[in-house]
Amino acid sequence: MKCLTEYLKFHTRSHRAYVHITPQVEQILGKSGIKEGMVLVSAMHITAGVYVNDNESGLIEDIDQWLEKLAPFRKDYKHHDTGEDNGDSHLKALLIHHEAIVPITAGKLDLGTWQRIFYAEFDGQRDKRVNGCILIPGSLAMAMARF
Amino acid sequence: MKCLTEYLKFHTRSHRAYVHITPQVEQILGKSGIKEGMVLVSAMHITAGVYVNDNESGLIEDIDQWLEKLAPFRKDYKHHDTGEDNGDSHLKALLIHHEAIVPITAGKLDLGTWQRIFYAEFDGQRDKRVNGCILIPGSLAMAMARF
Amino acid sequence: MKCLTEYLKFHTRSHRAYVHITPQVEQILGKSGIKEGMVLVSAMHITAGVYVNDNESGLIEDIDQWLEKLAPFRKDYKHHDTGEDNGDSHLKALLIHHEAIVPITAGKLDLGTWQRIFYAEFDGQRDKRVNGCILIPGSLAMAMARF
Repeated sequence: MKCLTEYLKFHTRSHRAYVHITPQVEQILGKSGIKEGMVLVSAMHITAGVYVNDNESGLIEDIDQWLEKLAPFRKDYKHHDTGEDNGDSHLKALLIHHEAIVPITAGKLDLGTWQRIFYAEFDGQRDKRVNGCILIPGSLAMAMARF
Repeated sequence: MKCLTEYLKFHTRSHRAYVHITPQVEQILGKSGIKEGMVLVSAMHITAGVYVNDNESGLIEDIDQWLEKLAPFRKDYKHHDTGEDNGDSHLKALLIHHEAIVPITAGKLDLGTWQRIFYAEFDGQRDKRVNGCILIPGSLAMAMARF
Repeated sequence: MKCLTEYLKFHTRSHRAYVHITPQVEQILGKSGIKEGMVLVSAMHITAGVYVNDNESGLIEDIDQWLEKLAPFRKDYKHHDTGEDNGDSHLKALLIHHEAIVPITAGKLDLGTWQRIFYAEFDGQRDKRVNGCILIPGSLAMAMARF
């Protein structure tokens, strides 16, 4: 296999949401047969991001409240002159960043004990997509999964 | 083509500036002939960064004001004991990060509809450089563009 | 050489610490014999990160005080209901991010004049690990170092 391309689609019920996607990434990694390399998981939106941290519900609430404090909803963002009302969603996404990269070792995501991959949605309730690449260097056998 | 290396140089007129560089990245990607992989775009400075978000002038003003709020100019940073006066520029760059990575699919940057690549300058009015890599995994044909 | 895997382990004396690791990354890069590509340096913990900036002691103090201001220690994080007391360490790690990527050119880290790689510890005084990949695209000779 040289290249595997897939996209994940999310439609969150709430305006902001933190979706645990490690199982999906692992599943695609397994399909790809890749043993060594790195995974790029990349949101395709400017009001969403991807990060690596703990899958603990209290912490996820802390993260949400903290992002609202650092990048609060406000009516008077200049961006709202375009008719949008999601200026804060852009700023929250900038803090979290659109992409995360995780190493692969011996066919598995080389995450620490508590590291999990999350899709962070800051302007939800509509379809959003994530893509990514799994890159492996190999002698003559290269593979890439995009999901 | 195995490897294409290029650097972009910026000299902004203002102290802080947000330069849309998607066209330059696309141009180099086109030159490289790469079909699948990922692009690394990386600032070579500690007071500049690279990010992916909307090319909307109001939002760019919002981003600038927000960064000034989170990492304000102050006279009393310890870093200024060295004779520098740009402590805030370092902190703004840490928030934005020095690099961004974007997937490539079918020969094009695999960006969402509104995603654009920006060089963010926080201590401008002098020459600054950006470099990057385009990595493609391929069976026997590898390519890399650095720009 | 196709693949070199190594891990760095840190045990900081203080709760928070900023460890300059460019020399270790350069050493492993030298061992790998890699000429062109990119390095992924990735913390394996959810209360630590990796960033690129200046190795100037005053600035490092500024960064530490600034992170404490943006993501302060507090007793009442919801995460603490689990028995933990390091909610702020998670938030600081989210700001800094768990990973950084640096290009390689002509066998060297392609850093700007003042760019250095740091391991940022936000919940130290115990063993922590960092891993990473060096990816090079090459025609038939691929290499990867993980450290």
